[in-house]
Amino acid sequence: MLIRGTFVQCPKLGELVILSDWLAAVDDSGYITHFENAESSTSLELQRVRTALILPLGTFLLPPFNDLHLHAPQFLYQGTGLDLSLLEWLHQYAFKAEEKLDRDPVLARTVYRRLGQRLVKAGTGAVCLFGTLKGDTNMILAEEMQSTGIRAYVGKVSMDISSRPSYIEASSSTAVDAARAFGEKIEQTYSVTSQSRPSLVHPVITPRFVPTCSDELLHGLGALSAEKGWRIQSHMAESSDQVEWVRKERGEDDIHIFKKHNLLTSRTIQAHCTFISSSSPPSSKPFVDLHALGTAIAHCPLSNIYFSASRAFPLREALEAQIKIGLGTDIAGGYSLDVMSAMRMAVAVSRIREGERVRTVSSDHGKSLAIDWKESLFLATLGGAQALGIDSGIFTVGAPFDAQQIRLFDPRSGIGAGALDFFELEMVVTKCHEESYKKPDLTEEMIEKWWCIGDERNREAVWVQGVKIFG
Amino acid sequence: MLIRGTFVQCPKLGELVILSDWLAAVDDSGYITHFENAESSTSLELQRVRTALILPLGTFLLPPFNDLHLHAPQFLYQGTGLDLSLLEWLHQYAFKAEEKLDRDPVLARTVYRRLGQRLVKAGTGAVCLFGTLKGDTNMILAEEMQSTGIRAYVGKVSMDISSRPSYIEASSSTAVDAARAFGEKIEQTYSVTSQSRPSLVHPVITPRFVPTCSDELLHGLGALSAEKGWRIQSHMAESSDQVEWVRKERGEDDIHIFKKHNLLTSRTIQAHCTFISSSSPPSSKPFVDLHALGTAIAHCPLSNIYFSASRAFPLREALEAQIKIGLGTDIAGGYSLDVMSAMRMAVAVSRIREGERVRTVSSDHGKSLAIDWKESLFLATLGGAQALGIDSGIFTVGAPFDAQQIRLFDPRSGIGAGALDFFELEMVVTKCHEESYKKPDLTEEMIEKWWCIGDERNREAVWVQGVKIFG
Repeated sequence: MLIRGTFVQCPKLGELVILSDWLAAVDDSGYITHFENAESSTSLELQRVRTALILPLGTFLLPPFNDLHLHAPQFLYQGTGLDLSLLEWLHQYAFKAEEKLDRDPVLARTVYRRLGQRLVKAGTGAVCLFGTLKGDTNMILAEEMQSTGIRAYVGKVSMDISSRPSYIEASSSTAVDAARAFGEKIEQTYSVTSQSRPSLVHPVITPRFVPTCSDELLHGLGALSAEKGWRIQSHMAESSDQVEWVRKERGEDDIHIFKKHNLLTSRTIQAHCTFISSSSPPSSKPFVDLHALGTAIAHCPLSNIYFSASRAFPLREALEAQIKIGLGTDIAGGYSLDVMSAMRMAVAVSRIREGERVRTVSSDHGKSLAIDWKESLFLATLGGAQALGIDSGIFTVGAPFDAQQIRLFDPRSGIGAGALDFFELEMVVTKCHEESYKKPDLTEEMIEKWWCIGDERNREAVWVQGVKIFG
Repeated sequence: MLIRGTFVQCPKLGELVILSDWLAAVDDSGYITHFENAESSTSLELQRVRTALILPLGTFLLPPFNDLHLHAPQFLYQGTGLDLSLLEWLHQYAFKAEEKLDRDPVLARTVYRRLGQRLVKAGTGAVCLFGTLKGDTNMILAEEMQSTGIRAYVGKVSMDISSRPSYIEASSSTAVDAARAFGEKIEQTYSVTSQSRPSLVHPVITPRFVPTCSDELLHGLGALSAEKGWRIQSHMAESSDQVEWVRKERGEDDIHIFKKHNLLTSRTIQAHCTFISSSSPPSSKPFVDLHALGTAIAHCPLSNIYFSASRAFPLREALEAQIKIGLGTDIAGGYSLDVMSAMRMAVAVSRIREGERVRTVSSDHGKSLAIDWKESLFLATLGGAQALGIDSGIFTVGAPFDAQQIRLFDPRSGIGAGALDFFELEMVVTKCHEESYKKPDLTEEMIEKWWCIGDERNREAVWVQGVKIFG
């Protein structure tokens, strides 16, 4: 496949690159084999042999979003029941919903199929999922994600301690065996795909969080991940009540417990990490540790606001410590599965942190704690890909062709797509004669407007590993 | 008109009422003349004589949103240029954009027409607008709002001090005369409408804010409003740099300056008021004053995050002081003109304030500073109507029939509309036989889900003063 048009990406934090009239060649396995200006000699040679798909003006390709943290079964009750503290909420809503899906495979399939459809429409190309306790239900989740064509990291949840007696695994060894069996089944089922394409569905070792996992279970899961090379996800230091509970029950913090059981690795994504240090502002020591271990963080700003508003995640400090960080929607602790919403909320939360810093230290000197929209776009794309350990998130030779096609405006009328208006462009387009009319290039301001008010109506297509999965 | 179905409203702060199978009768002037259960004897009698429009199950009527603060000309560059402090931003972006529209009536008409269309689709039934300096441009704004059928409070901006020499009125007396001429022209143009319906377009006295208005201008505008009974809007205590500037230049705070010029009245809406007191937490004294004066506040959470993140507006304290409060989108200081976004951001900002309170006082005792989604819905509907001094915002006999029709799901399939999913409903609907199937009533949780993730796709119609203006 050859595709020609404007490509937009964030090669590093805070940097936005607009490549006008560029050409990508994609091989049958879904990898980018060529990426250059469309008028370069090699690009022209390629276009002589094959016809390129040409994107209209006013449209661009961007890497799809990576959602690092989403509870698939909780999609059942997305957008309801956010009135409780985290631990009460888990007991009242989360465990019940997960148990319900484990009992009802028809409901599970309905929920997971819809989830896949909605994720793809929202431009999510890769998602790291918490599932439920039961292997079969998680196989349904894997099947539904596979059929959407999304990159899915599917976690069978492990827990041998529970506030809900009916929703628990029988013992630590049973739980470890179940995690092993699920992972092996996923690998057997999805290891070979057609056309020698890499598998897009992978298992993730998923201790729910420290309070629901005995030391024996955590130890077993750490060993299993080391043996198999499987990724790991969990929650770490999410809310103050959770942190205090762990300290009281176990005498240590999450980070020490995970670390001693070999669960903080370069294959690990830890959600939240909001209360990773008890000091305020948080010392950088735990971040130094995480960086050294290669462990990534899923920042979930919306659930930060709902479950741990007494402290915003110290995002700037974590970025300065060079930790791999991406965004998570945290359905249903967060109500929106749209990563655009997560980007906007991440900027909002960081701006409020910065406002508090300025007020508290009575000065606006020093490094700003606020991130801007371009930084949030990096987190949602390349940042998330790095956290997941995938080569996606950027257009470059050797990377898989993962992309979302965004339409900003109609080049003939200048009329914006969806919620977008570009009035000055409209006036120019209307006034100009066709022949003398200079083609409108995309500007950073146009991308910013999309970031602010764009929605699904601007998304025309999504590709993962070279395959069009939406549009 | 008779309309029968489910009506949802917030008769007071924090209270949500779902009236299933209710009947409203609306007279030719657009007022509600009957509002009762659809099976009451009077309701049945009415339905014998006339056919009611029956809303399908899964659909409800809600009062439309009231947007208390929006800069119409700044819609030109909505969603861009939010990188500066307020005073720099006004100089770099806002004044330039307004001047541009004052020079180019074709552009102004294009921008204002689109604005009206987008407001109505977003469910905004009444909007309090800042315009530009030039009377003619504001007449275009009024015409476009009139043609959408929205309730429009149109403010010709007054300013005789400016950081942009080309964008200023010649003198305080010229400015007062221009405000008078504009207001009279609006009243003459829109005082009489067809079918003896009340006018929906009104002038608003609009001193931009203290820094751009001399004492003479403020004095003249206060006298003009008193003479004519016209509403007043301005910005008050928006950002720390603005407050400090006023103190330095004028030796007083905004509130004292506005008050002495008779600009804090029961017809006044002041946007922001974030820094209304220099103490932290703010003392309630200025709020007591505002309550006594009957002056309303437009809370604009998104621009609070962008222009004054060092302090969140003390919303809970203002509500406790019984001030009239509604929400404003503050285009383009806020990037979204959707009041649903303003509701979500208002809750988010208030939750972060509450989190800070809990952390700072090391206790979770005391009144929560956080508002919940139902409180935000009150602010967006009845709260805003009260601030505007209109009888809308609630369904009751004697009130104008202003409504938005929201579709949650298809009653035949249970499939959610737009972004919404109601899986358990879907399962029930699928399993049940048509004849034994109990009609699904709307629940508070369903409304909550819409509040969290609903969007324009859920909006099927909007009425203002009994006239359907959308759908």
